Amino acid sequence: MLESIRRWAARNLDDRQVALLSELTSYARRDILRMTTEAGSGHPGGSLSSVGIYLLILAALDAENGDQLVVSHGHTAAGIYAALGRMGFVEPEKVVAGFRRKGSPYEGHPSLQVPGISWCSGALGQGLSVGCGFAAAARQQGKDSRIYVVMGDGEQSKGQLSEAREFAVSHGLNRLTAVIDYNRQQASGSLENILPQQIAAKYRAAGWTVEQVNGHDFSALYQALKRAEGNSCPSVVIAETVMGCGVPGRENDYTFHGAPLSREKLESCTLGLKGTGPRMPKKETAALSGFRGLDGGKRKVYPADAKTDLRSAFGTALLDVARSSQGKGLAVFDCDLMESVKVSDISKEFPASFYESGIAEENAVTTAAAMAKAGMVTFAAGFSAFMIDEVYSQLRMGDINHAPLKIAATHCGLDVGEDGKTHQCLDYLSLLSNLRHMQVLTPADPNQTDAMVRYMVQSGEAQCLCMGRSKTAVLTNEDGTPFFGKDYQFRYGEGHWLRRGKDAAIITFGMMAPKALEAWEELRRRGIEVSVYLISCPGIYSPEDIKATANTGLVVTYEDHFVESGIGKDIGAFLAQNGLFCKLACLGVKEYGCSAKPEELYQMQGLSPADLANVIIRGISS
Amino acid sequence: MLESIRRWAARNLDDRQVALLSELTSYARRDILRMTTEAGSGHPGGSLSSVGIYLLILAALDAENGDQLVVSHGHTAAGIYAALGRMGFVEPEKVVAGFRRKGSPYEGHPSLQVPGISWCSGALGQGLSVGCGFAAAARQQGKDSRIYVVMGDGEQSKGQLSEAREFAVSHGLNRLTAVIDYNRQQASGSLENILPQQIAAKYRAAGWTVEQVNGHDFSALYQALKRAEGNSCPSVVIAETVMGCGVPGRENDYTFHGAPLSREKLESCTLGLKGTGPRMPKKETAALSGFRGLDGGKRKVYPADAKTDLRSAFGTALLDVARSSQGKGLAVFDCDLMESVKVSDISKEFPASFYESGIAEENAVTTAAAMAKAGMVTFAAGFSAFMIDEVYSQLRMGDINHAPLKIAATHCGLDVGEDGKTHQCLDYLSLLSNLRHMQVLTPADPNQTDAMVRYMVQSGEAQCLCMGRSKTAVLTNEDGTPFFGKDYQFRYGEGHWLRRGKDAAIITFGMMAPKALEAWEELRRRGIEVSVYLISCPGIYSPEDIKATANTGLVVTYEDHFVESGIGKDIGAFLAQNGLFCKLACLGVKEYGCSAKPEELYQMQGLSPADLANVIIRGISS
Repeated sequence: MLESIRRWAARNLDDRQVALLSELTSYARRDILRMTTEAGSGHPGGSLSSVGIYLLILAALDAENGDQLVVSHGHTAAGIYAALGRMGFVEPEKVVAGFRRKGSPYEGHPSLQVPGISWCSGALGQGLSVGCGFAAAARQQGKDSRIYVVMGDGEQSKGQLSEAREFAVSHGLNRLTAVIDYNRQQASGSLENILPQQIAAKYRAAGWTVEQVNGHDFSALYQALKRAEGNSCPSVVIAETVMGCGVPGRENDYTFHGAPLSREKLESCTLGLKGTGPRMPKKETAALSGFRGLDGGKRKVYPADAKTDLRSAFGTALLDVARSSQGKGLAVFDCDLMESVKVSDISKEFPASFYESGIAEENAVTTAAAMAKAGMVTFAAGFSAFMIDEVYSQLRMGDINHAPLKIAATHCGLDVGEDGKTHQCLDYLSLLSNLRHMQVLTPADPNQTDAMVRYMVQSGEAQCLCMGRSKTAVLTNEDGTPFFGKDYQFRYGEGHWLRRGKDAAIITFGMMAPKALEAWEELRRRGIEVSVYLISCPGIYSPEDIKATANTGLVVTYEDHFVESGIGKDIGAFLAQNGLFCKLACLGVKEYGCSAKPEELYQMQGLSPADLANVIIRGISS
Repeated sequence: MLESIRRWAARNLDDRQVALLSELTSYARRDILRMTTEAGSGHPGGSLSSVGIYLLILAALDAENGDQLVVSHGHTAAGIYAALGRMGFVEPEKVVAGFRRKGSPYEGHPSLQVPGISWCSGALGQGLSVGCGFAAAARQQGKDSRIYVVMGDGEQSKGQLSEAREFAVSHGLNRLTAVIDYNRQQASGSLENILPQQIAAKYRAAGWTVEQVNGHDFSALYQALKRAEGNSCPSVVIAETVMGCGVPGRENDYTFHGAPLSREKLESCTLGLKGTGPRMPKKETAALSGFRGLDGGKRKVYPADAKTDLRSAFGTALLDVARSSQGKGLAVFDCDLMESVKVSDISKEFPASFYESGIAEENAVTTAAAMAKAGMVTFAAGFSAFMIDEVYSQLRMGDINHAPLKIAATHCGLDVGEDGKTHQCLDYLSLLSNLRHMQVLTPADPNQTDAMVRYMVQSGEAQCLCMGRSKTAVLTNEDGTPFFGKDYQFRYGEGHWLRRGKDAAIITFGMMAPKALEAWEELRRRGIEVSVYLISCPGIYSPEDIKATANTGLVVTYEDHFVESGIGKDIGAFLAQNGLFCKLACLGVKEYGCSAKPEELYQMQGLSPADLANVIIRGISS
């Protein structure tokens, strides 16, 4: 009788539906108490207040319509699992037995392995951005899906929500409905005692429609959700609830947030319920659209005498790809830097694929990750200091969700020059190395950039394309032809021998490659023959190639990155772990630079081609 | 005549003052045009609209009162430098000649080397939190200082500002006045085209007093600032300005945001000004209070049979220190986890030293960093996933400002157990390794934790204390006495030989140490004698000690951290760089764990003491 509440009852639930939802909620509450006590951990308080909201929305979800539910306050995992159990998505008894146990999908925070869970949450304040991403993806995919995001009240203090509110309004995501479990209790005390906030006022100020209802009154909640469907703006329903609802003596008790009942208490508190309780017939939500990828198009070959910056090569390639797909399946995010990061042409030609996100990178990255998860080829472009350092937590959560997000990070390294230390991103490889599914691509010239972009749009994996700011030369073979010529196709993990020599090996990546070739030239004049080996995907190393560099007897790593957290350390560890014994010198950035031209900054840190040549000369003779 | 505007004219400026401010502004605008054109980069547009605001506030700053000006939109560096020049803080001609040049203090974003700059900004949206920190520090230090924060309008979309607004109201920081340079233009277009936002409504919703005035009308702006002084809440003045103000043909032109005039244009655009122009007599702002430190008190020694968690040892030591200082000079920040991170006793006994920040970690960390910069011994406590990963950008900016912030990061590693992957912080060493001034401390037992906390409160450097979640044993000598006994004092960088043996060496840190000792015990039973070497400060290694481990012929690193970004890589690179040849095996976390008990998670990843022993047995015989 609950299968299609939305279509069955236009305005209200009938008494039988309310009675059934109430009964399901009671049993789901007992499930919550049992699973948290059995596990000896978890978060019963908020799960008990949220579970009715979950049950109603799960009942109302129209799978054919592609509707989705996002749980933002992931610590109510027990609540959503219990609701999924009673609503026919999973087996209630398996949830109770498996919650927070080794080998079970019912992890402490919502796990993607559980049917009905569309996004793994746990870091608070990100769910509304996820909802924005799902809603935007559905719209671009021609679906009329309704996206529900259930949030806690405590997490309303997270700044990312402010960004998401404005993004949703700016982009007209009117199919988005948020529900806040307003139980007024947090982990450490009441909302008023922790950080007072005017929740309704914040949403109204951003242009949302706000309703406040009794969150335990299914009719009232349902009607509010129905009204939200008709709004010409995003809607939020503040659902007044009771933390620990239904448990005698523990209602409105903040200490119930993260501490289960003891076994003895549980015995005396089965909520008067007996038997296994009711459970709805098997139900499934719509899967998010799968990744399709875009046609990579035809490689653009920059001639040997071209000189451009890599971000322009990126923008040119992406525009080319966008044109062949007419923007279909593509989403591009910008954070008020569209000229600098070279996506302004896309904003003009394909406005429906372009998401201007303002100076609000956290929402931009989470929203983009969610769009990627929902099947769109999604790029987020920005300065690396803001598209990597500023949003590490958002990247990490996107990674845990295995969202195939594409980051275009420009202005890496000292190469940013005069903007100075706040803008010199010297730690990007270090941060990115912790993301389990993010492929790190460091193009060394415009041709390689072009090839990498065409790879990215076809790949179902996440990538970060790390580029500098300055104009740079096209890498060439010794005969002067482009090294990455028309037949070059990027293959993930592949390194390249730019030059071969027996006396020593330089290992480098990205925009230091032309400087390494300058050193090679200088050394050749002096009769020293060195190899120059180019890493294209830091973190992935060919054992044979690294062994070959070690066989020269002297390896010198050379990078525009903090020396203690870049490829030098990787290579050093690789040599030690593999018993490859050779001399090793690591050249990299020792300290943030001041404001100066990149060439000056490199000189100040001993990173000029002449410095590199000298290190090799000294290394060979030592 | 401007030296003490605040005391001299209670309600308004007189005509002479307005005329002088106007003249100074004109010349400062010429300075801005000259310096950006000379540099060939920089941000003239916003500098031209902000510079009058800077001049007025600098004139009104009462140094004796400890007033401070914080520049949040750091890209207006040309504007604040020009204002500092005309207001007598620095030499205008030196600014013009040095801006964005090698060897000059006048970097592309405000540099601490410039007199009058109290905080180096560049990542947008953090300045209001800095103002909160300065205001809170001044209040605790018994000063009545007025703190002014000047921000851009574009950055108002940053979520951290929402957090800061609520924090300021919650903590009654009524001496805080924000001024927004409301020129309605951003880098990529008008405010309305980039991300529409209702700025006044957001501040009102948070409980701030909002005024909107003509930002180029000194009388109006001054009166608004005066009225703000009397408000019993934080105040914001929205100053309506014109981007590119004063430059014919370029006013309200967003493309003037980040592109200087050409030399030719500059020639024809000296704003009709001649000569060097007026400059106020030498002026200085008050320095922020210097770091004093607290008495470390007396070491608490946990006996060999004690079993507690490190976060409790941290909380106990900090409470002890707080008691001896009666909370004076101490600030402790919590983000709604006070019971879990063991600072709830401090919240009760020393409420004036306790800053409950809610689920809003970004503001908490920036505010705490600013308090630390202003001389307070400041701790920010939280789960490592949220106090490190979630706030990396805020830590980075605190680090660039050399703020001696103390982070107490609990729940590190797989040791967090059942909460699952979102809460398993497995990358903390990797992230922290990029902070230039942050000392990383990884206590291995309650005694070492106690010693480290007592060190931290006395040290003028930043530290991050990285702790697990579980109860753990007290480390002992072979004779069963506590290894870190009553005479142990923590020394930064010092490692420890927990055991000495000739056959192999285990290098470990933190809560894996007891497990390493279990392996040592097991190996001894089998007649294998291994060393167990404890790192207390990952990133700092004693060459002699590491050499001694290598001399055993087999080094095994053992850590509860992603194996590719923890100490294993450090040690590997150290061995390779120093030509120390031995066998090396790195044991660490390969993948996020599921929800399970820590011991189960260690077993699943081959990290149990038995696994460690087996690796050594195999390594020795290979």
